[in-house]
Amino acid sequence: MKIEVCYTPQAYNLFHKDEAVVVVIDVFRATSAIVTAFYNGVSKMIPVATVQEAKDYQANGFMAAAERDGEMIEGFELGNSPFGYMNFKIKGKTIAISTTNGTQAIESSRKASKIIIGSFLNLDVVCDYLVAQKKDVILVCAGWKNKFNLEDTLFAGAVVNKLTSESDFQIDCDSAIASKHLYNIAKDDMYEFLSNSSHRNRLAKLDLERDIKYCLSLNLCPIIPVMEGKYLVKM
Amino acid sequence: MKIEVCYTPQAYNLFHKDEAVVVVIDVFRATSAIVTAFYNGVSKMIPVATVQEAKDYQANGFMAAAERDGEMIEGFELGNSPFGYMNFKIKGKTIAISTTNGTQAIESSRKASKIIIGSFLNLDVVCDYLVAQKKDVILVCAGWKNKFNLEDTLFAGAVVNKLTSESDFQIDCDSAIASKHLYNIAKDDMYEFLSNSSHRNRLAKLDLERDIKYCLSLNLCPIIPVMEGKYLVKM
Repeated sequence: MKIEVCYTPQAYNLFHKDEAVVVVIDVFRATSAIVTAFYNGVSKMIPVATVQEAKDYQANGFMAAAERDGEMIEGFELGNSPFGYMNFKIKGKTIAISTTNGTQAIESSRKASKIIIGSFLNLDVVCDYLVAQKKDVILVCAGWKNKFNLEDTLFAGAVVNKLTSESDFQIDCDSAIASKHLYNIAKDDMYEFLSNSSHRNRLAKLDLERDIKYCLSLNLCPIIPVMEGKYLVKM
Repeated sequence: MKIEVCYTPQAYNLFHKDEAVVVVIDVFRATSAIVTAFYNGVSKMIPVATVQEAKDYQANGFMAAAERDGEMIEGFELGNSPFGYMNFKIKGKTIAISTTNGTQAIESSRKASKIIIGSFLNLDVVCDYLVAQKKDVILVCAGWKNKFNLEDTLFAGAVVNKLTSESDFQIDCDSAIASKHLYNIAKDDMYEFLSNSSHRNRLAKLDLERDIKYCLSLNLCPIIPVMEGKYLVKM
């Protein structure tokens, strides 16, 4: 089995393989929020590309979440802060969600036969699942508006590290090699490693240090969201 | 002044700024070959996107170079091996050139106000030039068919390292941070660091180890090719 890392949604078509398992990664914060939501009992989520689509779901009685440039959009109940999803009100609900990068990454990889949601909060269960599938893996980083970002790369590196050291996966691209190197430099203190990164600074300006620390915590939500048709559900 | 790293030609439009200086990088081997050609007395080069365009120039009496997937295309006098350009026959000539990645990177950044050609062979003079310009810098890696590659990233990291440590340049993106980290891991033995990289393996299969070692040598050709209209000329 081969493992590849796609650094931006824009590049997904260059990596697509019909049988591969895709892991969508948006550490700060969409996939961390989604994993948290399912861990806290949400029933289904509907990732949508545009804010308008989220509004349409809301108008039809759904809960809805929307974030752009790090901030919750006015008129919505939820953004992409994981802490927003630690709430009894979401239990059993179906939530439409649109974010700056994460839901775009889901959108761009929609033709994949299997899409799961990865974050540091479910790192180990994601790796265990990938090992059990015995299929090629494509790690799709959401990045920031189609630019490379460090935090998603670190998560990709953590997965590459685990899959190549504990299983038979082969690295098939330079981005996987680079991700693994970067993870190995960063792993003892990812928070410090990311201190100059563009998105940590962006979130720090919005007073979201608590979100950052939470999103870098390992295995707090050992569940896997998976796409089934237009829905994300808990595997 | 800000410095950014664009990992693939596909992404260039996300980075474009009217006043920035663009450095096009294709270490294995187009930009190493171009720098070598000018160091050895070529007068002008005409980078073209397609093999057909190179053929058309050839039909009109120009010398022409064409490479795809690491190999020189039949019917051409030159490919992208730097050693092909260490030849008295190129002195004073104008050569049309089309390669798998390097000339595509030039093509994608053509709307930049200034494009120069970078490689380890002219690292220091490129950095000195960038410092003197006092403008924003965009390092455009050719990559491999619009995927990230390690060797171009290492060169970008070397430039970021030099410009941020010896001058007033600010890092403005995560890809610049990552490139600098990777260069600092690799710098003491880049040949060894790249031993598992996809392109080194591709070239090794073609028996091009000598090219690899040459392309990783520092400052052997201290000149800068620069785009002027459709031509590359020596600055």
